[in-house]
This record gives sequence, structure tokens and C-alpha cells, in this order.
Amino acid sequence: MVSLITRLDSDEADFSRRLSSLLAFEAAEDEAIDRAAAHILASVKASGDNAVLEATNRFDRLNASSIAELELSREEMQAALNALPAARRSALETAAQRVRAYHERQKVECGSAGFSYCEPDGTVLGQKVTPLDRVGIYVPGGKAAYPSSVLMNAIPAKVAGVQEIIMVVPTPDGVKNPLVLAAAAIAGVDRVFTIGGAQAVGALAYGTATIPQVDKIVGPGNAYVAAAKRRVFGTVGIDMIAGPSEILVLSDGTTDPDWVAMDLFSQAEHDELAQSILLCPDEAYLNAVEDSIRRLLPQMPRQEVIRTSLANRGALIKVRDMQQACEIANSIAAEHLEISANNPQQWADQIRHAGAMFLGRFSSEALGDYCAGPNHVLPTSRTARFSSPLGVYDFQKRSSMIFVSEQGAQTLGRVAAELAYGEGLQAHARSAELRLKS
Amino acid sequence: MVSLITRLDSDEADFSRRLSSLLAFEAAEDEAIDRAAAHILASVKASGDNAVLEATNRFDRLNASSIAELELSREEMQAALNALPAARRSALETAAQRVRAYHERQKVECGSAGFSYCEPDGTVLGQKVTPLDRVGIYVPGGKAAYPSSVLMNAIPAKVAGVQEIIMVVPTPDGVKNPLVLAAAAIAGVDRVFTIGGAQAVGALAYGTATIPQVDKIVGPGNAYVAAAKRRVFGTVGIDMIAGPSEILVLSDGTTDPDWVAMDLFSQAEHDELAQSILLCPDEAYLNAVEDSIRRLLPQMPRQEVIRTSLANRGALIKVRDMQQACEIANSIAAEHLEISANNPQQWADQIRHAGAMFLGRFSSEALGDYCAGPNHVLPTSRTARFSSPLGVYDFQKRSSMIFVSEQGAQTLGRVAAELAYGEGLQAHARSAELRLKS
Repeated sequence: MVSLITRLDSDEADFSRRLSSLLAFEAAEDEAIDRAAAHILASVKASGDNAVLEATNRFDRLNASSIAELELSREEMQAALNALPAARRSALETAAQRVRAYHERQKVECGSAGFSYCEPDGTVLGQKVTPLDRVGIYVPGGKAAYPSSVLMNAIPAKVAGVQEIIMVVPTPDGVKNPLVLAAAAIAGVDRVFTIGGAQAVGALAYGTATIPQVDKIVGPGNAYVAAAKRRVFGTVGIDMIAGPSEILVLSDGTTDPDWVAMDLFSQAEHDELAQSILLCPDEAYLNAVEDSIRRLLPQMPRQEVIRTSLANRGALIKVRDMQQACEIANSIAAEHLEISANNPQQWADQIRHAGAMFLGRFSSEALGDYCAGPNHVLPTSRTARFSSPLGVYDFQKRSSMIFVSEQGAQTLGRVAAELAYGEGLQAHARSAELRLKS
Repeated sequence: MVSLITRLDSDEADFSRRLSSLLAFEAAEDEAIDRAAAHILASVKASGDNAVLEATNRFDRLNASSIAELELSREEMQAALNALPAARRSALETAAQRVRAYHERQKVECGSAGFSYCEPDGTVLGQKVTPLDRVGIYVPGGKAAYPSSVLMNAIPAKVAGVQEIIMVVPTPDGVKNPLVLAAAAIAGVDRVFTIGGAQAVGALAYGTATIPQVDKIVGPGNAYVAAAKRRVFGTVGIDMIAGPSEILVLSDGTTDPDWVAMDLFSQAEHDELAQSILLCPDEAYLNAVEDSIRRLLPQMPRQEVIRTSLANRGALIKVRDMQQACEIANSIAAEHLEISANNPQQWADQIRHAGAMFLGRFSSEALGDYCAGPNHVLPTSRTARFSSPLGVYDFQKRSSMIFVSEQGAQTLGRVAAELAYGEGLQAHARSAELRLKS
């Protein structure tokens, strides 16, 4: 019999090895997928609209006669929004408003005004911050089409000041997702094309006669989309390539075990590779959560996905104390970290690596996924060691500003020339020396 | 006869096409190099130190018996610094001090303190900013080994608060570059291994018994290094893959033509693919700069490189006015943009895309390359449309902070549940609903 969920104890001799093996995840590099994506990209680069149209009709089983035909009008997006039930529309609008408010705050706090300072000799140094001109948002079609992701990708771009947002979303067999279109209307997406796959990535990266070239492509997609994004990186900017979603719960044993069990489910229901892990110093509490899991699982519509995810990738881990839980959390660098404990801030202060931290027992990850305000696009697979939630800063870039005064050029010129000669770059040295007064 | 440098006029009928073709640069994707890099990475992943040692001895013609033997001591770095001529040491220290001062200012201005705000119901939202733990800096060996690059890569990491900086630098035939070692000492690099190529990238990305795994790898390298960096992206962070260096000069014709000619040389002397372009509304001034180029070129030690670069990739372009020059500059999105004009700020205000702007005739790019303070690692090949100079922010990451109060969970929970049901994610909905008071 397959166990419900792995149980580990940090005092076991082989704990580190077992934890590492549980965490190990490597996106299979599928050479066939990579080659197929490269082939599609090359055809889009060479033949533009025609290649995109041909691939779209073929893969999505459509009969469009032009790319223009695949563009959705603003009226169609607005109509989708108008047709929503009142409660759903209101929820979507509340979520959008809160996400916008958070990112507007973030824009101020992340140094969007740039800076400059003047030195005594009149030299002025600084940095100018500007938004990207045009951004492409990839939205998956079919079952993984999440309107919340449209908000989370488009709103920070809008707040950053991006002038034009182009959304692409495949519509296999012509089936459109009205919630996704409604979210696009609320988020202020400027144009929508019903294309997907590597051909959509190619169209956005290179531009075609109908689809304008963008400066950056964000948003999740399948393996072909990920392979295509990797390949166009450099021609355009891309966001992180996302791995399976993860939740790590640090509990001191004071939260209702049903709540924590459901939080673990909420991650596990995404897909079979999603990872849900609970760390707690209290063995009895871990038992209680396992009981909750056993009891609540049969009530869940997505129980098969949850069961597989928990059995293969989940774990309940007994730790020595909360201090050790924090150390393990830093080594895991989880996408979502719930600190379900009294006085959560004391533990949060010890966390260096996490995509998002949810503090206290009322802060379930689901609230952050939809409407707390911070972005739900977060670094997965330990990449929180070096990367950040999607944010306004992903849609801005900086330019250094250097004004050297005549007086400044006298001192800086001598330093630069000395170093340039040391590197064997004489034109650099001469360029500095020409500004010296004789 | 090959012309000295291409002359273009924005009023010519085929100007756009000719400019595009001049700017076109595509790093050849060499499948053989990519496969070789992948092979080396796989061997490092599988065999650690042994694979790194074997590749290093083979490619760099060494006879080391262990990786430990390839580590340089702090004493050796300090000795290299102590052995420098006083003027050179002083120049290097001045440069380091100015680069440090600029990045310390940048650290404050880019929101390193994070933020948080409290909503009326007690919900607290914010963002925490933390440095990366450990960073790897790749420094090329041989002729392209620039001590200034060691400063520019290491100092922002130190300022960000990175605890440990591991530098790798190949030493073919055992030849060490004392200026590079001295720069490492000044910049506060923690450990140095004399390894290079894809094997060094693999060692830093995966870690070996001797070389610790890092969180991000920065710094330029040859085609094997670039291919390896692309492949380890995701396991660790990487900086941009740099293309050939570029300078774009916008001139109103008021700067000494010799100065501008030398500025164009200073870019062109880097390598044959470097690009130097001048835009000016004054035809007579362009003629004067071409005369300066012709006259000054024979004096330059690197004249052959400069000649090839200017002939193949350089241009003097007559524009209608400075306004049009700014528009063209935005489409080029140059790595280095000199605005060599009276009142340069008025034109800088119109520039949206550039890695660094050098304002006024005394601000030659060479000063920025070495010692003005801002970073000289800048986005090339039009990537300034979406990316930034290397900075403190590249060595930090952000974590969202979400504390939802009990009262906040009542309103947010209803919104989240409504949207989660809409997306078919019932565990998400239940996780929010469990926090609702009955």
C-alpha cells in the first residue's frame, strides 16, 4: 500500500539525504520538444504571419484565413466581463484593485523615481528608471487558464507604465475562456490574439506584419512554450521558467490541523508534481494533520491529483524546534512559505529565502493566490535563493546617468588613463587624456 | 578600396533598411560548442572535482593534482596588490572607492529596506529584501582579463551584502594576471580558483567537494562559458549574455571632432565586432570627424582592430536634427550613449532606452568604463529595451510578506473562494473558507 504522505524526522541519520531526494526535481530537457520549438521559431522568423497562421490552424484545429481574424476586439473582452455573474465580477474587480494597490506601493518603494547626486566638482551621477515600451503576456489555454494569472501578469506591467500589453492565449477548437477575457478587460490588456505555443512566443519575440514585437514575454506555458522562451531570451526579456508549485508550512502546532491539511491540499491540487511539506516540532500535531488529511481528502473533487501529489512529493517532517524549521526552510527556499504560528514575525525574521511568506494562521496561501495584493507569480524550485516575485521592477529598466564636469574630467581622466594603459586599451586612455587641460 | 567608415543620411530612401542591416548582429548559435559545454557540465555534475581537475589540466595545460592546489590564497592576492607600481595601485583604489560609493547610493535608492503597510482591518502587506548568500564571478583569462571588470562585478555584490564571493579565472599555461589578482584583493573577493571554461561554470552551479555551490554566476566569458551559463540558468541565476560592445554618440557638432573620433576608437578597439556610431545634424561636422579618424588612426597601437570594426560596423550618420537623433537612439537602445552637446539634459530627457548615458563633452565613455562610479557591465545588442546595468539589485531578491488579520480573512476569504471555485480549485476555496467565522 502506498502511504498517504511521507513522514520524516530531522533526527534520523539519513534525514538530509531523504529530504534532498524528496526535493529533487529536474525539468526533463526534452531534446525533441526543444528541436520542435526551434523549428517553429525559425519558421515564424522567416515567414511571419503565414507561419503563425499555419501553426495555429494546425495545432489548435482552427480554420482562420488571417492573423487579423485571430485578434479579439475590446468589445468582445468587455462583453465577456459584462456577462459574468455579479458575485464573480465583483470578486475579480476586488482582486484587481488590491493587486493594483500593492503594486502601486511597490512602484514607489522600489526606487522608480531613479536618483542623482552631485559631487563637489560638479560631476553628477545617477540612474534613470523607465518602463518597457511593450510587453507580451502568454496565457495558457484549456484547463490551466487562470484569470487570476492574467491580473497578476498584466497589472504590474500597467502600474510600471508599459504603454502596450499584448496578450496571447490559444483557443484549441475555438473554445474561449470567458473568465480569462473578462480578466484581460479588467487588467487593461491592450490587444489579444488567440494564438499559443512556440508560434505565439516567436510572433511576440520577432514581430510579424500583424503582431507587434514586444520587449519582454511573461507568463507560464507548456514545455514547448518554455523551450521557445529560453531560445528567444536575449532578443526579448523573459520571466523565470516556472517549475511545479510548492508550499512549505512551518507550524508550532497551534493552528487547527484541518486548516493546515487544507492548505497542503490547495498546493497539491495544482498537479501531481506540486509539493506540499509541513515542518513542526510537535509529533502529536503531525499525527493530527495526517488524520485531517485522511478524513478530508475524500471530500475533495480533485482528490486523485492531491493523493498522487502528497504520496509522491509531500511530507510531514518532525523537527527539533522552530529554529531548526527556519534553517530547513532556508535550505528549501520555498515558493510559498506559511508560518502558521503564534508570533510569526520572530520566525520570519530568520528566513532569508522564500518567494512569499504567509504569516499567522489566517494568512492561507489561497488568499495570496487571488486577492491579498502581492503577486502570485513566484520563484519555484529553490530559485528564491536568487530571484523575486514578479513585480513592477520586472517591467522597468534602469539607465546609468553620468555627467562629468570639466573639473571632474581632470581627476577622473588621470585615473581612467592609468587603468586603461594597464589593460592595453590605449584609445580609452587617449579619450580620457584629450579632456585634460594641457 | 574598403571605406574607412560607412556614411548614412536619414533622408535617404533606404535609410531604415541600411541602418537595420548595420545594427544586425546575431550570436551564431554554434551547436558544436553548445554540445561540448553540455558534455562538460554533465561530467562536472557527475564527477565533481575530478571532472573539473581533468578539464582544467587538459584545456589550460596544467599539471595540478587537486582542485585545492588551484585555489589562490588571500596572501597571494594581497602580494599582487602590494607589488603594483604606486600610481597603478592608487588608480585601482580610487576606482574601487568611487564604484563602491555609487553602488552604496544605489542600494539605498533601489528600495533595499523593503516596505510594509497596514490596512484598516490589521492586515499587513509588504516586501522583504535580502542579499544572495553566495555569488560566483567569472573572469576571463588571457588578453581579455580586465581588472576593472573584477571591481565592477564584485563591488555591487559586496555592497548588496553577499556573504561570500567566489572568483574563477583560468590561467592557461599557469600564467596569472597580477592586476586581476590585485583587483580581487581590493574588491574583497573571498576565494579564487584558477579554473575557467564550462567546467568552472559547472563547478559554481552544482558545487563540488572543494568548490561551494553559488546562487548566481556573473561575468563575461567565451562562447563555451556563455553556452554553459545559458544551460545552468534556473539552477543558479545568471547575468545577461553580453554581445559585442557598442557606443552611440549624439553630437550637435560643438565638441572637438578629435575627441569624438577618439571616443569612437575607444569602443572599436575592444574587438572587430564592436560598434561605433555617430549621429549629427551637421554634415560638415561629420566630415571633420571623418578627417580626425583618418588622421588619428595610424597613431593607435590597436589600429588594425579599430580599422576593421569601424569599416564593418561603424557609421557616421547625418540626421535632420537632434530630435530625430533621439528617436533613432531609442530604436538602437545602445549600451553606451554619449550626448556630446550643449545642454545635454534636454536630449537625455527624450531617451527611453540606453544602458548608460554620458552627458556633455567631458563625459567620455572611458571615464565610465573605469572610475566614474556607475557600473560598466551594461546591456548590449538592444537589450537596454528591457534590461539594466549590473547593480546592487542583481545581488538581492525580494520576498512578499503577507499577514492577514482575522478580520481581513473574512473579506479576502470570500473573494478568494469565489475566484477559486471559478477556476475549479476547490481546495483553494475551502482553505479560504475554513478561516471564515461561521
